[in-house]
Formats: sequence, structure tokens, C-alpha cells
Amino acid sequence: MREDTVQLVVVGSIGLDDIATPAGRRTNVLGGSATYACAAAAFFTRPGLVGAAGCDFPRRHWTFYRRLGVDLSGLQVLELPTFRWAGEYAEDMNQRKTLRTELNALGAFRPSLPAPYRKAPFLFLGNLQPAIQHEVLDQMHAPRFVAVDTMDLWIRTARHEVEAIWGRADLVTLNDAEARLYSGETDLVRALRRILRCGPRYVVIKKGEHGALWASRRGIGLLPAFPVERTVDPTGAGDAFAGGLMGALAKLGRTDEPAFRYGLEQGAVAASFCVEAFGPSRLGRLTPGELARRWRLFCRMGKPSSERSWR
Amino acid sequence: MREDTVQLVVVGSIGLDDIATPAGRRTNVLGGSATYACAAAAFFTRPGLVGAAGCDFPRRHWTFYRRLGVDLSGLQVLELPTFRWAGEYAEDMNQRKTLRTELNALGAFRPSLPAPYRKAPFLFLGNLQPAIQHEVLDQMHAPRFVAVDTMDLWIRTARHEVEAIWGRADLVTLNDAEARLYSGETDLVRALRRILRCGPRYVVIKKGEHGALWASRRGIGLLPAFPVERTVDPTGAGDAFAGGLMGALAKLGRTDEPAFRYGLEQGAVAASFCVEAFGPSRLGRLTPGELARRWRLFCRMGKPSSERSWR
Repeated sequence: MREDTVQLVVVGSIGLDDIATPAGRRTNVLGGSATYACAAAAFFTRPGLVGAAGCDFPRRHWTFYRRLGVDLSGLQVLELPTFRWAGEYAEDMNQRKTLRTELNALGAFRPSLPAPYRKAPFLFLGNLQPAIQHEVLDQMHAPRFVAVDTMDLWIRTARHEVEAIWGRADLVTLNDAEARLYSGETDLVRALRRILRCGPRYVVIKKGEHGALWASRRGIGLLPAFPVERTVDPTGAGDAFAGGLMGALAKLGRTDEPAFRYGLEQGAVAASFCVEAFGPSRLGRLTPGELARRWRLFCRMGKPSSERSWR
Repeated sequence: MREDTVQLVVVGSIGLDDIATPAGRRTNVLGGSATYACAAAAFFTRPGLVGAAGCDFPRRHWTFYRRLGVDLSGLQVLELPTFRWAGEYAEDMNQRKTLRTELNALGAFRPSLPAPYRKAPFLFLGNLQPAIQHEVLDQMHAPRFVAVDTMDLWIRTARHEVEAIWGRADLVTLNDAEARLYSGETDLVRALRRILRCGPRYVVIKKGEHGALWASRRGIGLLPAFPVERTVDPTGAGDAFAGGLMGALAKLGRTDEPAFRYGLEQGAVAASFCVEAFGPSRLGRLTPGELARRWRLFCRMGKPSSERSWR
């Protein structure tokens, strides 16, 4: 494998966000699922970003991606404004209200993968219309590991297409509210089982500051979140989590359960940095050393007692 | 240490609850913080229950405690009705509404510890007026490890007394809403630090189905919750958690951090059984083998990847 070959393709939104949290407000913040996923994945591998920006997209953001080592050959710049989202977080940051969504370039986005991306072994399909996710998958040549994210809107309006894309995926990620919405189950263990039945090998339910619950056919796994000192902006944390996970798997070239657990930890740590500042800016100035140190601390914090000690 | 010496004293409420959850409703259910804490602790040690029941307290409940091996020599039966609580849980079981509280015997309760209890090394002070908690502590002869629980009402109305009791405790337990209320901090890491400053050696913030965050002066620890298949009634889970933890420490006769982590796991597992049925009934028919099996499973589910594997 050559260093510059893209092993992980990330398809998703690119946007400009207006964000209000209890810690402050910012406008025109670089955002979108592909942005956060790539920013986290770039610590492990050279991700290839597939997405659409508008003609108003500020040039400094291209520099942001390039400095992180994101490959931009799959990027489209359309003759439309960039996708815009405005949202506001409640005091405890677990609830957010969307104030405005303007699809713009995202509404016209028809992903077309550069030829070298089509042979990539790892693919992350960020939250997009399931029909578009299917179109991307159709362009890939037998990817080894496909992760799919979704949102409540598609579960409500395109349930069968969502189930079909889950059936083609190795990993399904979604948040707890979406898992409950899809399954009609309050208990997440049952929700996990319902989603596994659609065919993926792994399911991860993201619970924000409460971590994640995951399952494979062999059983259930628990992942706490790294406890951050001060949450400034939770936007994109779920995508940074998925991006860190997929980046770590792509780097290892493994998809077995121990590797998956390791990837989940790296994703959780990437997400914990992500929320420390507005937008992806904290990920932009993060060093590999900081990431590695927090990962080691995270593992110590969550380490169960050893069974042998108590016999 | 003789088998029948009480190593752990549990002081708290004894009540009769009317409970409505999405899974159903039950009336006159045995409840109270001392009940749940003793029911969990009894798997590890012979707890001594200190509390007050009323003259209407059904005899079969004494049998429930005795069958579990709870020592009842500190129990008072007052010429008043038993404490009653009625509550209702929302669909996701994380929110509950108190419909009715009748203090009755609990309002007149003045704990008086039997002489042998006063030398016990472990003490759990369940949620009671802080003035009463102080009275109990005053009766003890240099206990080795004191845990104190509280509630929002005392934080609001008797903040200084709460802080004073925390200063006399080795372990403070409270839930996330209470920790935020006390500290004025949204981020729980900061709340933990604020509470540690009052003097306890350990602080545990209970987050219900999301597990717990804990801290000592050496740092922060993460504990997920065991994911239960079907939550029927969350009442008492926090007390079962604290009771399991204290019982495990009393059994080990240790209070160091590895023992504490082990105790937290046992508490989490006891709490996970507790919520599987109304009231403490699931704990009443739990076997030590079931508890041990789930604890091993829980440790496997939460085990971080080993650092050495990824070098």
C-alpha cells in the first residue's frame, strides 16, 4: 500500500453552520458530516472526501482540509451556494434545535467517485439521502468494510431504503433517538438486535456525552465517552467519532472485534476533542501525541477490574 | 470477624410505593432507600438495616429482608403509617414525576443504632435529611468508610449541612441532576471536582441507564451501565447500586481504588437486576451465581483494547 493511496473514502455533506451553544455563538463555521469525519480520520489515514461545496465556499477551508492531509480529488464545487445549517443547543447540550436548513449545493449533489476511490477498501457513508448512499455503493468495487450513518428524517420517510442500505453495510451508526424511532423499542439492547437483523456485522448506537452501545452477532459492547472538562460545541461529534473509528480500522487494515473496539476508542477520543471548540477547529490543531495520550488515559479510566484479583 | 457480625450498617427509608412505568403499575410495593441498598448489599455481607416502618407494614416484608440475610435489630416500628411514595415514569424511564409523598413514620424517624452497629467499619447513609445523617454519624465509633447519598431537596434547602456531611464522608453518591444543581456546572468533570473539594475521598455521579462517572483525588473513572434487555421499573436502582458497592467493599474489607472499581461494577450489576422487575423483587430471587455471571459478562463488554496490541 502506497502512503498516498486513499484507503478510506468519506462521502457526506460539506456545509457552513451557524451555531449557538451555552458557550457562545459562531457564524459561517465549516461543517458537514464529511468535514468532521475526515478531520478525525486524517489522524490515522489519508481520507478521500467526496462532497459538494458551493461557489461561495471560503478558500481558507480548502487549506484546512489540505493541512490535515485530506485528499480532495472527489470534491465538487457547484454553481450554487453551499449547504447551510443553523442550530441552537440547550443548556445541557444534549438537546438541539435546528433553526434553519438550506440544502443549496447539497440538494443538487450527485456523488461521482474518482476512479482510484472505487477500489478503496473502506467507505464511510455519512448522513445523506439513502438513495444517494445506494448510488455511491453501486460505484464501489467490492469494498471490504462499509459504514453507514443516517438520520431520523430518512427513518421516517424512506424506511425501506434505509433498511436496504443497512443490508449492504458492515457497520450501521445512529444515535439513541434514531434507534428508538426505528425499532419502537425503549431498551437499546432490543433496538440493537432489530437493526442487526437487517444484515450489518456491527451496529453502534451513539449516545453523545454518554458514550455508545455496540453490538455484533457475538454480543454487546459498552463504550463510555471520554469526560471532557468543558463542552463548547457538540456539533459534528458523532461524525468525528465515526471518522476516527473508520480511520483507525483503515490504518490497521483490520475489521475483527478487537480492532473494532480499538477503533471505537479512537473515535470516542477524537469526538471528545471535537466538542472542545466550535466547529472542527480543535481537530484542526490537534496533535497525534495529544490523541495518543488521551486514548491511553481513556483506557485506564474505563478499565474493568481484573477477575483474577478477586478469586 | 464472625459471620454474623454486621460489617455494613445501612440507614435510610423504608416505604410502600405506588409505581407506574411504561411496563405497568403496582401499588404497595416494598421500597425505600434502605430496602434497595440492603437487598443488593446482602449478596456480599450481612447488612444491618436501620430505619422506621409503620404499624401498617405488611409482615411478609420482614420475611423478605430475613430471607436475604438482612439483620433487623436496628429497625423501628412506629405508631404511624409507613412512609409512602407514588411516582410515574415517562416513556424513556429516565424522567420520573413524584405524584405523592407521605412522610408518616419517616418524618418521625430518629435513628438509634444498636450497640454492635456502632463499631461497624462500613456505613451507608441513604438519602435522609442531612441533620439525621449527622446524628447517625455521631453515634458511630470511628467507622472506616462512610458513604452518603442525598437528594435535590437537601441541596436546595440545606446546602451547608449537605457540605458538612460530605466533609465527614469517604464517599459521596448523587445523580447527575443533583451534581449539576449543587455545582452550577454543566460538565460533570467540573461538578466532580467541586464536590471532591468538600473532602470525600471518592465521588460517584450516578447517571441511571448511562452508568456512572467517579473520581478520587487521583483522577476520574468511567463506568458504563449493564445494558438490560427490558427495564420494567427503575425505582431504587441508585440505592441498589450504592448497596452493592458498599457490600462488596465490606466483604473485601478494602477501600483502595482497585477494590472500589470492583465494588462499582458489582453495584452496577446489582442495579441492572433491580430494574428488571417492580420493586426489589428481582433482587429477592437473584442467585449469587447469576450475579457473578453477569459481572463477568459486564467486564468483558466494557474491556478497553490492550495498549500493547497496537504498538
